[in-house]
Amino acid sequence: MGKLLKNINSPKDVKKLGFKKLKTLCTELRYEIINLVAKNGGHLSSNLGVVELTVALHYVFNSPIDKIIFDVGHQSYAHKMLTGRFKKMVSIRKSGGISGFPNPDESKHDAFITGHSSTSISIAVGISRANDILQKHGYVIALIGDGSLSGGLAYEALNNAGLIPKNFIVILNDNKMSICKNVGSMAKYLSKLRANPVYVKAKSTIKQAFDHIPVAGGKIKNLTYKTKTILRKFINKSNFFEDMGFSYYGPIDGHNINNLIDVFNAVKSVNRPVLVHVDTKKGKGYCFAEKNPEIFHGAPKFDIKTGCEIKSENTNFSNLFGRCLCNFANKDKRICAITASMKTGTGLLNFEKKFPERFFDVGIAESHAVTFAAGLASCGALPVFAVYSSFLQRSYDQIIHDAAIGNYKIVLAVDRAGVIGEDGKTHQGLFDVSFLNAIPNVTIFTPGFFDEIENMMEKCLYKTSGVAVIRYPRGQEGFKPKDFISNKGETTFCCFGDKSSKIAVVTYGRIFSEVCLAHKKLKKSAINIFCIKINQIKPIDKKLVELLKGFDNIFFIEEGMLRGSVAEHLNYLLTLKNCRAKILIKAVNEKFVEQGSVNENLKLLGFNADSISKFIKERIL
Amino acid sequence: MGKLLKNINSPKDVKKLGFKKLKTLCTELRYEIINLVAKNGGHLSSNLGVVELTVALHYVFNSPIDKIIFDVGHQSYAHKMLTGRFKKMVSIRKSGGISGFPNPDESKHDAFITGHSSTSISIAVGISRANDILQKHGYVIALIGDGSLSGGLAYEALNNAGLIPKNFIVILNDNKMSICKNVGSMAKYLSKLRANPVYVKAKSTIKQAFDHIPVAGGKIKNLTYKTKTILRKFINKSNFFEDMGFSYYGPIDGHNINNLIDVFNAVKSVNRPVLVHVDTKKGKGYCFAEKNPEIFHGAPKFDIKTGCEIKSENTNFSNLFGRCLCNFANKDKRICAITASMKTGTGLLNFEKKFPERFFDVGIAESHAVTFAAGLASCGALPVFAVYSSFLQRSYDQIIHDAAIGNYKIVLAVDRAGVIGEDGKTHQGLFDVSFLNAIPNVTIFTPGFFDEIENMMEKCLYKTSGVAVIRYPRGQEGFKPKDFISNKGETTFCCFGDKSSKIAVVTYGRIFSEVCLAHKKLKKSAINIFCIKINQIKPIDKKLVELLKGFDNIFFIEEGMLRGSVAEHLNYLLTLKNCRAKILIKAVNEKFVEQGSVNENLKLLGFNADSISKFIKERIL
Repeated sequence: MGKLLKNINSPKDVKKLGFKKLKTLCTELRYEIINLVAKNGGHLSSNLGVVELTVALHYVFNSPIDKIIFDVGHQSYAHKMLTGRFKKMVSIRKSGGISGFPNPDESKHDAFITGHSSTSISIAVGISRANDILQKHGYVIALIGDGSLSGGLAYEALNNAGLIPKNFIVILNDNKMSICKNVGSMAKYLSKLRANPVYVKAKSTIKQAFDHIPVAGGKIKNLTYKTKTILRKFINKSNFFEDMGFSYYGPIDGHNINNLIDVFNAVKSVNRPVLVHVDTKKGKGYCFAEKNPEIFHGAPKFDIKTGCEIKSENTNFSNLFGRCLCNFANKDKRICAITASMKTGTGLLNFEKKFPERFFDVGIAESHAVTFAAGLASCGALPVFAVYSSFLQRSYDQIIHDAAIGNYKIVLAVDRAGVIGEDGKTHQGLFDVSFLNAIPNVTIFTPGFFDEIENMMEKCLYKTSGVAVIRYPRGQEGFKPKDFISNKGETTFCCFGDKSSKIAVVTYGRIFSEVCLAHKKLKKSAINIFCIKINQIKPIDKKLVELLKGFDNIFFIEEGMLRGSVAEHLNYLLTLKNCRAKILIKAVNEKFVEQGSVNENLKLLGFNADSISKFIKERIL
Repeated sequence: MGKLLKNINSPKDVKKLGFKKLKTLCTELRYEIINLVAKNGGHLSSNLGVVELTVALHYVFNSPIDKIIFDVGHQSYAHKMLTGRFKKMVSIRKSGGISGFPNPDESKHDAFITGHSSTSISIAVGISRANDILQKHGYVIALIGDGSLSGGLAYEALNNAGLIPKNFIVILNDNKMSICKNVGSMAKYLSKLRANPVYVKAKSTIKQAFDHIPVAGGKIKNLTYKTKTILRKFINKSNFFEDMGFSYYGPIDGHNINNLIDVFNAVKSVNRPVLVHVDTKKGKGYCFAEKNPEIFHGAPKFDIKTGCEIKSENTNFSNLFGRCLCNFANKDKRICAITASMKTGTGLLNFEKKFPERFFDVGIAESHAVTFAAGLASCGALPVFAVYSSFLQRSYDQIIHDAAIGNYKIVLAVDRAGVIGEDGKTHQGLFDVSFLNAIPNVTIFTPGFFDEIENMMEKCLYKTSGVAVIRYPRGQEGFKPKDFISNKGETTFCCFGDKSSKIAVVTYGRIFSEVCLAHKKLKKSAINIFCIKINQIKPIDKKLVELLKGFDNIFFIEEGMLRGSVAEHLNYLLTLKNCRAKILIKAVNEKFVEQGSVNENLKLLGFNADSISKFIKERIL
């Protein structure tokens, strides 16, 4: 395989191929994508769904002069393979390797970084307007999935894009899915559009005449008859997108490459914003992914022949949280669960099954999720929004304005908190503690061990007012020393190690395990440390400050940003107490953390046991 | 005047009135609103526009069992007057008085706090779902303006609301305006709907039959013939709102109270989500406000007879920023300006006039504004987004994910930074420094005097990379000592006072003026202080840390949240230097700041000269 692909060094080489070879190219791309993800893990279903789309885009448009913006760019594997990175793809999502998302530092063909959802149209509007201001030329194309269309940002952008007085292309990659099945009125509406009688399955059925399609002056004469008829057929007046100022074309079959090329060629001539509605199948071409696109959305390594994961995931923080929430919900009918299109990742599948009437998937709409939760709480329900740390950044104003000001009891279950791995800098969960710390009426709990989840959830639900946060990393708990007496998260902080030591090492969450391992290591060098794990990082228990006052050395190890950290605040509280200890903070400062495995990143940032013990050893008084 | 109003203690009293008296009530409400705002300042135009709407809502629905959510609730004056607060309205927007926004602490009829835009439908969906879960009854009504409909949050909520399987009412208060003229495709689309031939001006014109309107089982028989015909007439199939899952009714005349009551009664029986499109006039009933609804949106005190402001606004930070930006834009054609529906407030009116092709009002869409700016920057334009601090909270993820990660040069001109006045807790600009501090690739400048704006803008535009922020308060500059040698913002920090003093007082922005005044006061008590004004608060100049090391007492006065503050970080930098000074921070900690004049609030928080000098006096070593 890969005969054609091997010789494609840029989109120019795609343009040289005939239609038949383009189809072969698509087959090769699929084969490579499946093999790549089977080996490295990654986003499979979405990439398989856009193979023909990507080839057609590079066949018709002229990147990098024309700008193609991939929304939530995890579906850019074929694009990467066609833009000079085929041989480097083995390094995808690995430390120092090719990014799993578009990255302008990597290639001039990656117009913009896109890791979060629903940004592509805003970016494209910006590029289009910049071209006007700077008198540059080039088409601008936003490729957005139907899932991303549930995000408000996409709508804000459509509302602005609809008035652009020239060509501007949005391609709606409609695969009926977010990560899970897509939800909401828009999804329902799209299914109605797909069922539209004008849906064209083969070119041969295209016949009717067209009159009202605005195209660039003069150019209309140059269009082929075929193109004209396609335009004619696809236009569908007075639908949602027309109302938003777009000319609507579609739906068209997203796996018919000839058709795609014809339509893309046709819409180039339209002198106003156009939306091309493309019907694709997530997982297309790999039977297991077609059947279970959700499982193969962000997949771990798997066996190609059986479709089975090579290593299935064990008990983890996410599914333990989900189990725990179900237990509480059994007893308390006010409890409801909210997800923003992440029910699998956040461990809510069982909750949905058990309590469908109290389960809400709001789509990729994190802002709405929080305001919705506050609305629920205002009338006596007890909402729990489970969300990845990095996506909660989208709810910042809603947490302040809709939840915290009114002191409404909502629970935020912040998953993927701290360093994440292969998704890289757009997905790091390193900001949540900083941004939540500044907000009044917010309490934050940080389990590091599985057995702490239940108590902390109970506190979130029943023993705090306002916004209660429980934050935990992806995956398993870390090392727990045999002689560590777990109080199961009942206290605001807990300790381990040598009580008579004058060296305190303060941390929270999973890094406590690394600190305990460092404790072991340091012991061998006759350095005894006292390890403190904060269970409730906001507000800080005054007793912790009293305890810390007595040490000569205090090291804070915080898996988050330095600015706004728990450590900086504790340092100030110690300053107020005239503490004269030598204080040092290890946290992430003024940088974005790149892709790599979690362990690689923890090491790189100095958060693993080795780095921590070295750090302490070199710096103790 | 106020004969009827005086006797209205709750919505129950509204229901007792006949149609004729309802009209008189509306006249009374208008009279009172105009007089109130003329005396106190406040939101005039929007309140005058919803008088009939509010009366009709309280006539038909049964608050507080039925919940009415006012979007950006500044249009709730009539509602407040009808719900037992008529006599207290004189205290509106004053310290300790009635809020200019709905506030559940104030009345059970205020279902939710709403100060920011586009939240009402999300809240209403929450309330509606909570009612289901807890088996409560009651209608839920979201009243949202066409301006608020440009916010993505409203769309995310519509996308969820459209699937509610029971009655759920959205009333679209279409006054063709945000604060300024409404923009975007949606605004254009609404104007198309308003021009729709089914627009009904008088009940007598209603005739046709209806078939397809889903209503609650059985109830249809109980509707009057009149109601049926109204439903019939107003329904308008296959428009945007229908596509989003709503039954659409309208547009109807928002100043015809009888008509409004009939329609509201009718939609109560519809067993699914409905959207009632109401056509209103901002400023209705006060000629000056009708002519200039924008000027009277958030108005200062004015003379009723002439419509003239009693005190016109002088030169202020906002219009100086705008002037400065025009000067730069004259020389640099890459510069463009973005506003989220705030061109007047942010001082961009002249920019729009001079450079219309480089001016972008994106609607109430702060998230889009930042991603759009990053898109512009990615292709070589130089975008400046002028925005109020409190609204920038909506762009948090976009600043991180779309601008800072890619290190794109965008400028954020953060207006209304720090304590604001009468709008109260939803509008305080106290979080921006904390949330921006944690983000890499962000530089922040803080002018306190007018003559610093130009240099700092130059730095933002040309001498920094990534996200450059200039933040300033509303209004005028403060006291500047004669012997203060201004370096016009050229340096990272500047100083004033007694160099030999062992007491340093560190601040930034306008509070420096208060510190200088405190310097004067303390001198009288023979206490000499050294005042330091930080001009660039991120990153911190190392020289500042070196300078501070030499003092015995260091006081930080910061008009922002303690957590994540500049002061906490500086304190840590001093800790690292083994600084043994007594350090104290005065900042806002764990509370939301209520309404009151800016000066009252500064005093309350301890940021005025008196409080600062007292604070220092009591605490120096």
